Amino acid sequence: MNNIIDLDKKYVLPTYARADVEFVSGDNARLVDANGKKYIDFASGIAVVSVGHANKRVNDAICKQLSNITHTSNLYYIAPQARAAQKIVEASGYDMKCFFGNSGAEANEGAIKIARKFGEKDGEIKRYKVITLQHSFHGRTITTVKATGQAYMHNYFGPYPDGFVYAENIEHVESLVDAHTCAVMIELVQGEGGVQPLDKEAVQKLAKFLKSKDVLLIVDEVQTGVYRTGKFLASNYYDIEPDVVTLAKGLGGGVPIGVVMTTLKDIFSAGDHGSTFGGNFLSTAAACEVVDILNEMNESGELQKNIEYFDSELEKFYNAHKDIFTSKVGIGMMCGLRVKDGETLAKIISNAREEGVIVLRAGKDTLRLLPALTITKKEVDEGFKSLNSAVTSL
Amino acid sequence: MNNIIDLDKKYVLPTYARADVEFVSGDNARLVDANGKKYIDFASGIAVVSVGHANKRVNDAICKQLSNITHTSNLYYIAPQARAAQKIVEASGYDMKCFFGNSGAEANEGAIKIARKFGEKDGEIKRYKVITLQHSFHGRTITTVKATGQAYMHNYFGPYPDGFVYAENIEHVESLVDAHTCAVMIELVQGEGGVQPLDKEAVQKLAKFLKSKDVLLIVDEVQTGVYRTGKFLASNYYDIEPDVVTLAKGLGGGVPIGVVMTTLKDIFSAGDHGSTFGGNFLSTAAACEVVDILNEMNESGELQKNIEYFDSELEKFYNAHKDIFTSKVGIGMMCGLRVKDGETLAKIISNAREEGVIVLRAGKDTLRLLPALTITKKEVDEGFKSLNSAVTSL
Repeated sequence: MNNIIDLDKKYVLPTYARADVEFVSGDNARLVDANGKKYIDFASGIAVVSVGHANKRVNDAICKQLSNITHTSNLYYIAPQARAAQKIVEASGYDMKCFFGNSGAEANEGAIKIARKFGEKDGEIKRYKVITLQHSFHGRTITTVKATGQAYMHNYFGPYPDGFVYAENIEHVESLVDAHTCAVMIELVQGEGGVQPLDKEAVQKLAKFLKSKDVLLIVDEVQTGVYRTGKFLASNYYDIEPDVVTLAKGLGGGVPIGVVMTTLKDIFSAGDHGSTFGGNFLSTAAACEVVDILNEMNESGELQKNIEYFDSELEKFYNAHKDIFTSKVGIGMMCGLRVKDGETLAKIISNAREEGVIVLRAGKDTLRLLPALTITKKEVDEGFKSLNSAVTSL
Repeated sequence: MNNIIDLDKKYVLPTYARADVEFVSGDNARLVDANGKKYIDFASGIAVVSVGHANKRVNDAICKQLSNITHTSNLYYIAPQARAAQKIVEASGYDMKCFFGNSGAEANEGAIKIARKFGEKDGEIKRYKVITLQHSFHGRTITTVKATGQAYMHNYFGPYPDGFVYAENIEHVESLVDAHTCAVMIELVQGEGGVQPLDKEAVQKLAKFLKSKDVLLIVDEVQTGVYRTGKFLASNYYDIEPDVVTLAKGLGGGVPIGVVMTTLKDIFSAGDHGSTFGGNFLSTAAACEVVDILNEMNESGELQKNIEYFDSELEKFYNAHKDIFTSKVGIGMMCGLRVKDGETLAKIISNAREEGVIVLRAGKDTLRLLPALTITKKEVDEGFKSLNSAVTSL
């Protein structure tokens, strides 16, 4: 294990504050590190491993696809891409078309490109402003960094593109819309912003207002999408009809993939946008299987049962530790607990790892939990048992 | 097959002018479409499938990795990421560190972020201009679109970030460097720009000049990297020492991956940059195997033999059709033929597909060939036989 840490320090740029652990294998919500220590994973690679580690159905689908073909360019038809697009659109319930990239940042770049082209008239930039929320997170490209409403992230990498406007909160958005606004981009549950769901009525009111002003509503579902909140999209949960939706993390079960989908089916012409890897046989074969698995779990009621069980155990845990936690936040399997202070939160995360359960931070004071949607009762019980020890030993 | 085309038209945004073909399987440089028709692939998914379709070693490495673990977040050490970084740095011969993203565009975003942070002093943007070349191509994010020196691509999606300056050619770069320049970004062989290698002496002179001015040299090796030109990097071929290099297409054998590597090992602190999927177990396990295979082929002399054979057959083909082709361009397995006019080129590409060989366009008049580096003599012979028929039937 020392060897890997040494190699990492020698050859990898230090952009991550890595914890001193190296996982080597997993099975659903279980992980094993290089020392043979076992963990319950309440983080899923930040909501990526939505159907669990080493999911046999996903792996079989990928390996079968690889034995035939992994990648061709998008100059030719790609069967699993077309099928994945169909599955995603049908599961969303919206009348949309998809573009495939390789990450959430690329998906959001696509969304901003759609909004900007929508705002252009006769070759002139007429409407170009995109309103986002404070505490939002939209990605790590230069443009999505600027779209992110966290001022501390806007260092170093400028000049940034103009045209991003930040609203203090959802209620504040309407007053910022002007003749130059082409779109509003929101996360319905801010992931990096503290697992905070937006108010449903406020979102519905905003959606209606934007429709009346012909301003696009982009919902960044990079973290909330693909059943993370219990519905295929958080937008479904909020009962709104966005113009543009982006997906990424949980869609490929661990394979890099990003999607921007829109009702503006003719916004792009050939050549307006593209990706070399995006939508290739590998990534979309994985996405097809992930969506199939979760659709089946949704239809059978298993998904709802898993969510309810996790929520009830989280509720119990919260009630037992109200001296440490100030509130319970989130929707579905995107949930967390507000901690009384950031120092205690840091201690909980590191104690938890010691005790054998992997949890995350969100914002400065939120314990964030993003378990596999396939997590079993036994795994939930073991995880909370360890989390209990982590908190008790504070 | 009709079914897939219908699905694609119904559910996928029309950003690609797809040819009317759907590949279903491959084997090294061979492809089979949904009608059972066989092809030789001289395109490799645009230089992606560097070790051939359905490469057994890569597939076995991926499936073995998947059976253990596909993805965790970068909050923990990831063994194949550290190993891939070591292999890449060692093969490059440069004293660098790596950051892993998911595409060439993301790699170039990372490079521009490095350059901008390099140009910043005490929290103020001092040097921010990045000079790129006309006819360059650097990606499809808003910033890399603007970095791309092709004016027709700068429609629709503005406002773009300021600070990109375009040089007419490599000799023109020096005169554009001013007190605000932090970097020059070039492709040594422009892919989209017509498979045109830059002049070696001019590049070496520029590299020396930039060093004297403390301006970074970024080499975009998204297409040229990972042995495409016969050396691990085209930068090795040009015998220069860049400050930043980006890689993507050929690195993962079809798995989405991008790398930015730099001599500026301390340019980023934790939190300055990041990626959810970037460098995960899947993509870096694939990259490790691809680099191993190509290192072995390079050491055994097989790579050089494959390049020489392809080149000699291309030379013969060129000499036999000087009525159609005006010159032979490129380096190693990144090569092509200039066609007398764009209309003839379009006809050649479509005829070639009819005759069973897949070739590409670059710029407006270049027939571009990017075969698998593992292509066999038999495959080369069959491909040129079909290409010959394609040209004869013009």
